[in-house]
Amino acid sequence: MLPKPLSPLDQLFLLLERRNQPMHVGGLQLLRPPADAPADFLARQVEKLREATAALPPFNLRLNRRFGNWFWVEDEAFDLEAHFRHLALPAPGRIRELLALVSQLHSAPLDRAKPLWELYVISGIEDGRFAIYAKIHHALVDGIAATRILRKSMSEDRSAELTPPWTLQRRNREREPGADLAIVGLARLIEGARTQAATIPVVTRELYRSIREARENPDFVSAFQAPRSILNQRITGSRRFAAQSYSLPRIRALLKPLHATVNDIVLAMCASALRRYLMDLEALPQKPLIAMVPLSLRRDDSDEGNQIAMILANLGTHLANPLDRLETIRGSVQDAKRRYSRLGGAAMLNYVAAVMAPAGLNIATGLAPRWQSFNVIISNVPGPKRPLYWSGASLEGMYPVSVITDGLALNITLTSYVDRLEFGIIACRRTLPRIQRLLDYLEQGLVELEEAAGELQPQPQPEAPAVKKSRRSRSQGA
Amino acid sequence: MLPKPLSPLDQLFLLLERRNQPMHVGGLQLLRPPADAPADFLARQVEKLREATAALPPFNLRLNRRFGNWFWVEDEAFDLEAHFRHLALPAPGRIRELLALVSQLHSAPLDRAKPLWELYVISGIEDGRFAIYAKIHHALVDGIAATRILRKSMSEDRSAELTPPWTLQRRNREREPGADLAIVGLARLIEGARTQAATIPVVTRELYRSIREARENPDFVSAFQAPRSILNQRITGSRRFAAQSYSLPRIRALLKPLHATVNDIVLAMCASALRRYLMDLEALPQKPLIAMVPLSLRRDDSDEGNQIAMILANLGTHLANPLDRLETIRGSVQDAKRRYSRLGGAAMLNYVAAVMAPAGLNIATGLAPRWQSFNVIISNVPGPKRPLYWSGASLEGMYPVSVITDGLALNITLTSYVDRLEFGIIACRRTLPRIQRLLDYLEQGLVELEEAAGELQPQPQPEAPAVKKSRRSRSQGA
Repeated sequence: MLPKPLSPLDQLFLLLERRNQPMHVGGLQLLRPPADAPADFLARQVEKLREATAALPPFNLRLNRRFGNWFWVEDEAFDLEAHFRHLALPAPGRIRELLALVSQLHSAPLDRAKPLWELYVISGIEDGRFAIYAKIHHALVDGIAATRILRKSMSEDRSAELTPPWTLQRRNREREPGADLAIVGLARLIEGARTQAATIPVVTRELYRSIREARENPDFVSAFQAPRSILNQRITGSRRFAAQSYSLPRIRALLKPLHATVNDIVLAMCASALRRYLMDLEALPQKPLIAMVPLSLRRDDSDEGNQIAMILANLGTHLANPLDRLETIRGSVQDAKRRYSRLGGAAMLNYVAAVMAPAGLNIATGLAPRWQSFNVIISNVPGPKRPLYWSGASLEGMYPVSVITDGLALNITLTSYVDRLEFGIIACRRTLPRIQRLLDYLEQGLVELEEAAGELQPQPQPEAPAVKKSRRSRSQGA
Repeated sequence: MLPKPLSPLDQLFLLLERRNQPMHVGGLQLLRPPADAPADFLARQVEKLREATAALPPFNLRLNRRFGNWFWVEDEAFDLEAHFRHLALPAPGRIRELLALVSQLHSAPLDRAKPLWELYVISGIEDGRFAIYAKIHHALVDGIAATRILRKSMSEDRSAELTPPWTLQRRNREREPGADLAIVGLARLIEGARTQAATIPVVTRELYRSIREARENPDFVSAFQAPRSILNQRITGSRRFAAQSYSLPRIRALLKPLHATVNDIVLAMCASALRRYLMDLEALPQKPLIAMVPLSLRRDDSDEGNQIAMILANLGTHLANPLDRLETIRGSVQDAKRRYSRLGGAAMLNYVAAVMAPAGLNIATGLAPRWQSFNVIISNVPGPKRPLYWSGASLEGMYPVSVITDGLALNITLTSYVDRLEFGIIACRRTLPRIQRLLDYLEQGLVELEEAAGELQPQPQPEAPAVKKSRRSRSQGA
């Protein structure tokens, strides 16, 4: 293979990477062995993975720096031993121990001398399940593609054998917008220029121009309204990961009584959880928190297309009443959707770039935030609609483990899987204490809305029609 | 703390470090919880370790490069989470799984952005024991000091609480010769010069001069006699670790009948094992393998002093009869001891440097070996004579995990502990297949000698006197 230069976006991820800010994404999957599995089921699967010693691109590519630029070259010394490990949880093997281990594994930067990924099979969970934690550098593959690769290594067919993810042929390396559009927007601005520190003035000039133009746009009022908060501090390299599943039918049952979308309910749950969490710490800002939310604008069921935009959602965290918060969220989301529907592709990109500018600039320069355009990223990544299997073991949960950066110490990423929403929360462990509380507070946020809906409409609809009705929104979270 | 420049020796370890050749040493310790320990004994100990978040030098020092040189600086962002982990073995939790995990942990290079050490508590061993695996960079501390630090974190007092090793005050950073004297010798030659690639010509000139002088010395015949062998190939970054304990009383029972020292018997066991291992692979050289052996010349029981030399021992691996091999080994060791006893300190150092030169030169330049002055390093590091405890858990085994380099794909390091010799064998997994066979072959080598001694002397002495008699050699392995 000839050395292949990294795209400006990929180079940006290397440039942004620091000891306190490793730029890899991850995923945690929980699996249950088949009921009739022999005692050595997992050992055999691990053996099969160990025997797949040949990796295909991008899993066999390592970084090489030549003439001041980064290239991908094939790693002639590729050794699966350095990328794949079988570990077990210390007793008692609760989910708590699993999340602690994943937190530590996700904290460690990948070794740039080798292909930038690792995959761990983790056994010893007390209930007999096992887990897979995978991490891959953002410069090698984006989060959505990483999820897709892991998903393709599984099957809807219970009897299919697993395919080691690193032996999968990739469709193409085209990036799909979504969770990463924020940084894609920034990267496009600097495309064509070298993504070295020297180009920061160019980026800055471009960004300022976008912001000035944007400020003359009356629809642009929300971009710099985010309050300062403890979510927006510098971070350390230590991570805490928390994950939990929430019932989609429960959420769907609220859509009609509350005139809301799944996405509105998700944001309301997050708003309630963040409000409680920050109140515990006596750190709730007087002004409402602003979330950046990648949102699908698609109205059909097609799988392709780039109709995804970034919106800034007002979480209404200053409001005590859950219905008031939901109303604020719904209003800001609907405003944003209307605005987007009037914008063409290029205009939308400019808008996204402008909204993103301060955050992007902070990321690129490492300066402390001067403006805070948003406080937290909440991403809803479409996931598999049908149950998946891995050599007969059933996938019971899949939780995204995302990236945080200086100024954005918390990230909430969720994905849909069959009839659940799977939340993965990642934060700087030193900056934000006890983020696992957010899991309970998300549940409380859902219960609040259920109670409110119950008061509005004492006879809730049966679940089945709600499920059917909202099928379209199911995979888009909108 | 002011930045402290690294010594030339310490810089050498950084210079020598490559992806396939990480320069850290390690140790594996096996512990058994007290009989009356509560179920959460280990969890509590781990909690105690986790709470010791402040590290003392050298455990809080990270590398910093200024003006082209390396310095130690205090790591202001020190985070114990990045250095201490609690893992468990996958089922069935045999020693095999433990050694596989340690092999993987030892293969991974340390992150130079952080203090250069890691410590793992490993639970889930099937027999109820647990393990500690620690690794520390050779630039931060040498192998003997690392062993001493770990030992000092334990106690001869069963009721004493453990002290986290990273909170121990170090006596001083003076290096003690021993397992590392080879590289110390090389480093002294280049002391005063900058240990950058530019200084390689200086080193080369110095080394050639030493070799020329040494060749004129009639005692120097053995230095370039080692045959080429598969032990002396380039290595990859993948390690395989094997470890086992052997009974010291069994070895001591052979000393009188075979007129040998503990060190002779150890070398004869290694010779027998290497012969069998290489015959399996049809790779036994016709000429005998040469081992480099750090050897104490001390005749008293003092703990201090630098009376340790490197000798080259002829392992007699071309001979089929175990007593012939033992005779060859004993002869070459006695020759070397006589030679050393006639040399003063400076002369000895020159001699060591000359003997080491080709190996050292290969290490420093990365060139394939042109001469092979020895095939394998066999180190015997004195260990604790009395049982040690760690919050009441008894230390049942401690195995060194050493460094290998291009051209020296196998290292056998052993240490004494109470009434056992604890062998740690580390090798390149790709270059040398199935090195765990060496463990059985070491045992067979011991049995061979026992049978030979039985034929010489049908009534073996009772064990007690032998133990008493050889007390002096016990801790020196000589």
